[in-house]
Amino acid sequence: MSNLLMMNELTNEEIMEILYDAQQYKLGDGWKPSKMMFVSNLFFEPSTRTRFSFEVAEKKLGLEVLNFSAEHSSVQKGETLYDTVKTLESIGANAVVIRHQEDHFFEDLIGKVSIPIINAGDGCGHHPTQSLLDLLTIQQEFGSFKDLTVSIHGDIKHSRVARSNAEVLTRLGANVLFSGPKEWQDPLNTNGTYVEVDEAISQSDVVMLLRIQHERHEQKANAQNYLSEYGLTKEREKQMKKHAIIMHPAPVNRDVEIDGDLIECERSRIFKQIENGVFARMAVLKRALQQINHIQEVNKHVICS
Amino acid sequence: MSNLLMMNELTNEEIMEILYDAQQYKLGDGWKPSKMMFVSNLFFEPSTRTRFSFEVAEKKLGLEVLNFSAEHSSVQKGETLYDTVKTLESIGANAVVIRHQEDHFFEDLIGKVSIPIINAGDGCGHHPTQSLLDLLTIQQEFGSFKDLTVSIHGDIKHSRVARSNAEVLTRLGANVLFSGPKEWQDPLNTNGTYVEVDEAISQSDVVMLLRIQHERHEQKANAQNYLSEYGLTKEREKQMKKHAIIMHPAPVNRDVEIDGDLIECERSRIFKQIENGVFARMAVLKRALQQINHIQEVNKHVICS
Amino acid sequence: MSNLLMMNELTNEEIMEILYDAQQYKLGDGWKPSKMMFVSNLFFEPSTRTRFSFEVAEKKLGLEVLNFSAEHSSVQKGETLYDTVKTLESIGANAVVIRHQEDHFFEDLIGKVSIPIINAGDGCGHHPTQSLLDLLTIQQEFGSFKDLTVSIHGDIKHSRVARSNAEVLTRLGANVLFSGPKEWQDPLNTNGTYVEVDEAISQSDVVMLLRIQHERHEQKANAQNYLSEYGLTKEREKQMKKHAIIMHPAPVNRDVEIDGDLIECERSRIFKQIENGVFARMAVLKRALQQINHIQEVNKHVICS
Repeated sequence: MSNLLMMNELTNEEIMEILYDAQQYKLGDGWKPSKMMFVSNLFFEPSTRTRFSFEVAEKKLGLEVLNFSAEHSSVQKGETLYDTVKTLESIGANAVVIRHQEDHFFEDLIGKVSIPIINAGDGCGHHPTQSLLDLLTIQQEFGSFKDLTVSIHGDIKHSRVARSNAEVLTRLGANVLFSGPKEWQDPLNTNGTYVEVDEAISQSDVVMLLRIQHERHEQKANAQNYLSEYGLTKEREKQMKKHAIIMHPAPVNRDVEIDGDLIECERSRIFKQIENGVFARMAVLKRALQQINHIQEVNKHVICS
Repeated sequence: MSNLLMMNELTNEEIMEILYDAQQYKLGDGWKPSKMMFVSNLFFEPSTRTRFSFEVAEKKLGLEVLNFSAEHSSVQKGETLYDTVKTLESIGANAVVIRHQEDHFFEDLIGKVSIPIINAGDGCGHHPTQSLLDLLTIQQEFGSFKDLTVSIHGDIKHSRVARSNAEVLTRLGANVLFSGPKEWQDPLNTNGTYVEVDEAISQSDVVMLLRIQHERHEQKANAQNYLSEYGLTKEREKQMKKHAIIMHPAPVNRDVEIDGDLIECERSRIFKQIENGVFARMAVLKRALQQINHIQEVNKHVICS
Repeated sequence: MSNLLMMNELTNEEIMEILYDAQQYKLGDGWKPSKMMFVSNLFFEPSTRTRFSFEVAEKKLGLEVLNFSAEHSSVQKGETLYDTVKTLESIGANAVVIRHQEDHFFEDLIGKVSIPIINAGDGCGHHPTQSLLDLLTIQQEFGSFKDLTVSIHGDIKHSRVARSNAEVLTRLGANVLFSGPKEWQDPLNTNGTYVEVDEAISQSDVVMLLRIQHERHEQKANAQNYLSEYGLTKEREKQMKKHAIIMHPAPVNRDVEIDGDLIECERSRIFKQIENGVFARMAVLKRALQQINHIQEVNKHVICS
């Protein structure tokens, strides 16, 4: 069963294989299942980019898409996530993509449903396809992760991106720096070293900004001071290494995490990340479905003989 | 015009034909319209399983799907159902599937629109595709309906499932028992006999549980006592006949209508019902559209000659 | 870049070309892009008919559709329209169709995104595809616009339809009359002459009624008096020229702008307008995408050589 739940479940080899496939898709390669297959996108939190990115990936693979948003569903009737997924499986879904506000929502599902589950973001937990598209973007730029310095800026504590990326980048040989407000440091995340923002920016090959998730914080962060104290200002951008790049998972809060004028500057890869998201998700979906495809063909042979 | 509005409009022969087609779809048969056809799913009440079930059925038949939920529509601008359907017809829909909170919503439409209407549930009225999938599930199990004992448990009065199924099962030769709280008995429904829950369960070939529709009742039913007084407990399950099966239209209220541990027990057909729903709906859609397909080809000939 | 933002940006020749293509689609012609193409429908205001009309048009052209409604999106997270469109472009959308509550929403986008934008209605501003379908309906009826008298009835001031249609009809040689309550006259719109309702109706070849947009007016118009004072009553219909037709952009407020019994009378083209909407939008989409298709093929050649 090729679930994709957390980056730390993937070996380095598996990651490299996914990135290879994603790059092939970018170069124009195709893969189609040998029969009609359905993927259901279950989004319990609003999201434009992730849902559309999955939807485009699915359609490029020739998959049939079932879009689900929590507001219009039996979830209003008090159904459990397990029952919803089991229902979709019975209706004919061959895989489910789930975004859910609860950390580790998938623990209620593992081993109990027979279709692959792809985590599209769980609470403050994980967001593996975001990590994969980030890795793809870095790999396209630098060829390898070994000895790169990647600084992650912002709310380290509540960010799924920070957690997943720090773990996997460290494992792949990169040097990870953290930077941001004291109250957002995460003592449990030991995959990076805390440094001052100016130091982090001037030393990095990759400056990775995190989104301030106003919707998750009870008190609004003081947006005005944030840029000058912790964000990527025009002055700081001038201190970046010549070949260093800027990344951000988006949507960007303009003039908070980054000066609005830098969002589309030459070294920004922000929209390229979004583009890469489609290819990374195609690779993840193929990984989830090719096995089913194979198993079902084997079964078919058995039945026929 | 092959509408599907209420089970009591279908002859026994028509029902058997639909079940035959559904079973063929289950075995892998296909049917495609000879030209691009659009089906619009109009859901004025939230529903995961019914909407997705129709959507999968439509896509398996190669139909183009137009999904509509009332919140995003001109219905907010005070448009009547008739005007909405007439508009969809003008836009190019070849059939409409409608779920609506009002009993007999379709009376405003019959004879006034020229595309088939498929009732996906009207208020406390009817839900014919649910009946058809229930019949398909029973037929797969027992081959025939003649002399089977089917007990229906719960809110007989407000249930579309109870109304449709009691009528059609009686007509097809089954013996129908009703069981449940006194206040939910329905004196107008004469297609079944009221008996005590233990008696009903021990005598039945099919134990058909109804969902407690909290969203339709002003006072919440006392869920805790319901299971022990009227529901399918583990003790009662042990009194079932050896070959008897459990059915429920879902979504299930776990530990209310049925002990949660029984939902996926060997004799439960609950998820099989959901699976069958797709095949039953494919048959209903084909029935609605094949005629149009035929008529339109005939018309085309006339125009060409 | 073949945007479609406002009718006054199209030359008469371009309009005639679009109408020609639309008519060909109506007669059964097809056009398909030479590769998989995505169109995103961004609707920030609810709309049944316009969204479905675009969706059917897109699917008839073999395009992949990404439906977006503002409620479920990152717009809730405060993202700008520019960032949303730029994101969709990065994800792979080849064109965007946008309805937005703000007049001239597209001014933030022009020249900054590289995919065509199709305006599906901006605030009280413009609604060019509605104009095109109106023109198509008139052309089908009368063959030409020269010397036709078209009267537009109702809220001239706030209507996108009135603004676009008066300008383009005048330019195409028609004589435009305005009629309606004094407070809804628009001194800035000089493309028509104000006359009394009875005079307008008896002189017109086309009686074009506007929808009273209760949702845009703070005080509800007095609906009861509106019909007798300004609307199309049965008595007024009898004063129409023999070959004159009735048009309305829909949804109709029955018995407000028009007596309900006249909506489907012989001279009404209201549902025909809706039908024509699909063909007009197919022509607009083809116009937007054929160039991209061409450019991309050219680029491909350059890359290959």
